[in-house]
Amino acid sequence: MPTAKPSPMAVPLPPLPPIAGVRIGACAAGIRYVGRTDLVAAEFAPGTHVAGVFTSNKCPGAPVDWCRAALKGGRARALVVNAGNANVFTGRAGAQATRATADAAAALGGYPAKQVFLASTGVIGEVLAHDKITAALPALFGALSADGWADAAHGIMTTDTFAKGATRQALIGETTVTINGIAKGSGMIAPDMATMLCFVATDAKIPQPLLQKLLRRAIAGSFNRITVDSDTSTSDTVLLFATGAAKHRAVPADGGKLLTGFARALTELLHELALQVVRDGEGASKLIRIDVSGAVSGKSARRVAMSIANSPLVKTAIAGEDANWGRIAMAVGKAGEKADRDKLSISIGGVWMARDGAVVAGYDEAPVVAHMRGHEVNIAVDLGLGRGQASVWSCDLTHGYIDINGAYRS
Amino acid sequence: MPTAKPSPMAVPLPPLPPIAGVRIGACAAGIRYVGRTDLVAAEFAPGTHVAGVFTSNKCPGAPVDWCRAALKGGRARALVVNAGNANVFTGRAGAQATRATADAAAALGGYPAKQVFLASTGVIGEVLAHDKITAALPALFGALSADGWADAAHGIMTTDTFAKGATRQALIGETTVTINGIAKGSGMIAPDMATMLCFVATDAKIPQPLLQKLLRRAIAGSFNRITVDSDTSTSDTVLLFATGAAKHRAVPADGGKLLTGFARALTELLHELALQVVRDGEGASKLIRIDVSGAVSGKSARRVAMSIANSPLVKTAIAGEDANWGRIAMAVGKAGEKADRDKLSISIGGVWMARDGAVVAGYDEAPVVAHMRGHEVNIAVDLGLGRGQASVWSCDLTHGYIDINGAYRS
Repeated sequence: MPTAKPSPMAVPLPPLPPIAGVRIGACAAGIRYVGRTDLVAAEFAPGTHVAGVFTSNKCPGAPVDWCRAALKGGRARALVVNAGNANVFTGRAGAQATRATADAAAALGGYPAKQVFLASTGVIGEVLAHDKITAALPALFGALSADGWADAAHGIMTTDTFAKGATRQALIGETTVTINGIAKGSGMIAPDMATMLCFVATDAKIPQPLLQKLLRRAIAGSFNRITVDSDTSTSDTVLLFATGAAKHRAVPADGGKLLTGFARALTELLHELALQVVRDGEGASKLIRIDVSGAVSGKSARRVAMSIANSPLVKTAIAGEDANWGRIAMAVGKAGEKADRDKLSISIGGVWMARDGAVVAGYDEAPVVAHMRGHEVNIAVDLGLGRGQASVWSCDLTHGYIDINGAYRS
Repeated sequence: MPTAKPSPMAVPLPPLPPIAGVRIGACAAGIRYVGRTDLVAAEFAPGTHVAGVFTSNKCPGAPVDWCRAALKGGRARALVVNAGNANVFTGRAGAQATRATADAAAALGGYPAKQVFLASTGVIGEVLAHDKITAALPALFGALSADGWADAAHGIMTTDTFAKGATRQALIGETTVTINGIAKGSGMIAPDMATMLCFVATDAKIPQPLLQKLLRRAIAGSFNRITVDSDTSTSDTVLLFATGAAKHRAVPADGGKLLTGFARALTELLHELALQVVRDGEGASKLIRIDVSGAVSGKSARRVAMSIANSPLVKTAIAGEDANWGRIAMAVGKAGEKADRDKLSISIGGVWMARDGAVVAGYDEAPVVAHMRGHEVNIAVDLGLGRGQASVWSCDLTHGYIDINGAYRS
């Protein structure tokens, strides 16, 4: 809940500069929460390209259906996001709510409804009171500004305990472009394509198919490497808007070397946002980094790392500051990937506790104990089989997670 | 821990009658626990056939390696089980411990070491002090009796809060045979082949290859249908001993109709033991039954059911007595199996709350609330696609699980 104590791993929201071609802001529409903003909107300059990646969950929310259809046009003029109600599993009423919201925004701005993108998060299965949204939109659209990024980052929060944002600059040719991103997410986090909500905007001018490709690649190395609780949300949405307001050299259809710096900056930005989501994992007290090496392939390494990252027994051991590497061995073995117990090595905080399938006699436990007491725990596993490697991030499983999720709806 | 308050779903240990050809018992060997039994042994009549199914975890314990090799002979004369140390991930020392234990038992009984079966559960990664076991064996073997089943059920417990056992009778031809089983298990329960430890004995005389086939089939419908925390143990072992002491008609190699009743009784017995394991799930306060129908196949139904059964958000909602069917829809959607949101229906306690992809307007919440307050919660999901169905059992996720596993080793 927004009133909860901030996560011990919280990071401050960095200053988010204006992006040429973007006006953004938030207001309180009273959808679920009282005394806080819960409705966010943005308007984009004409000609803005959009790319999107959505949840792989087979029961997606109505706004995800809407965005998938709208994305086919490749253009965006507006974004409307509400917190408190996910508009998921709401049947025809859910589809009607998305249509009414997009129509209202389109009428205000004078552009096609199919250029309005939508996202909702919160409770599943309750009909969204879209009249509250459409009633609040005129004043909200009138107040949008280039400086509204921080307000937007706060307005999309649900069980988040801190607002999440990141910014980067990159050179395209000799021209500096800027990328801003905001995200929300804390529970129901096991993105298989994307995670919860993340909105990114840049003033770069990038052809739409290329923008989509860049986004997919950046997500594979960022949001698809984190987990909080292995539960894949029905609402996961990442949207990237490129206004094209920056006066850089024209980008060829295949991007070429011109976008190398931009692609790197985009991946870094999404990675920073993804880690903020894990830092705010529901009830989490530790950020866990898991590096797997020596796997038969990178894919295999990622699966083994995710098996460790999602193991309740590993996560509770870390919550208890117990360097229980036996449970890590268990999680490697249950992953279903190629593994040989007698070649397996495990370290925590850089100290190798197990080598080649057995405990390291007389390893120094003191630095491990000290490492476990901190808010960031590093686990490394070497399978001793090949050259495949992967890193993923998770958090511990504590009483806080049970508190939040044993009484979320009521 | 053995001193913990019994699970609210605990069931009393039924009287376990003698099995002709089996002598069994337990003693305190001081392996880890103080003031309780922790070493169990059984001796079987000459000619006893044995079948076994073991963990699919790629990092199995040394006793699992031992049993897999011993099983090739198909004959058993003894069983030795310790609680408190799993002898997993212990390298050469682990293999030496199994060899020394089997040798000691074999010397006492005058049979080959390869007819001694072994199992260990408890902490992973610590060398097993097998000298404590071998020192205790002579007195223990001297005290084995036909009436020692209840003592054995208690002696194999680790984090279990109650002893687990079941018994059945079946007719083979006109002869009554008896089957006894004991099991232990509470956490690290997501059997993919078997679960934790379960030992079954019967006086039936069944050819070994057929015995193995019967056991595999019975496990598919029992232990492979339960989960506590999605973590597959490194020690899962189910052994079935058939002493052949009953004077029934000879069983043909393919079993035929003669074993229909026996096979049913065996499956029922394993199912009863599997449910006892879930009832004792670490920290659990509710037993959850999940029935999935309308899937494209039985396999698909089982995967969807297991996705619900393992979802931390579903499990915490049930702990909080919140009929949050939206989370059930989420878990269906993330399973990766064929599903159509708009054909999905969900009921709790027999009340259909969602039909064809949307909430049932005005459903009666009172009986659902009353049902959620009980210790047994029934969830039914219909996918509306085909005829595949499956039932699985799980338990809720509570503060108790965090308490137990955040401080198990220390």
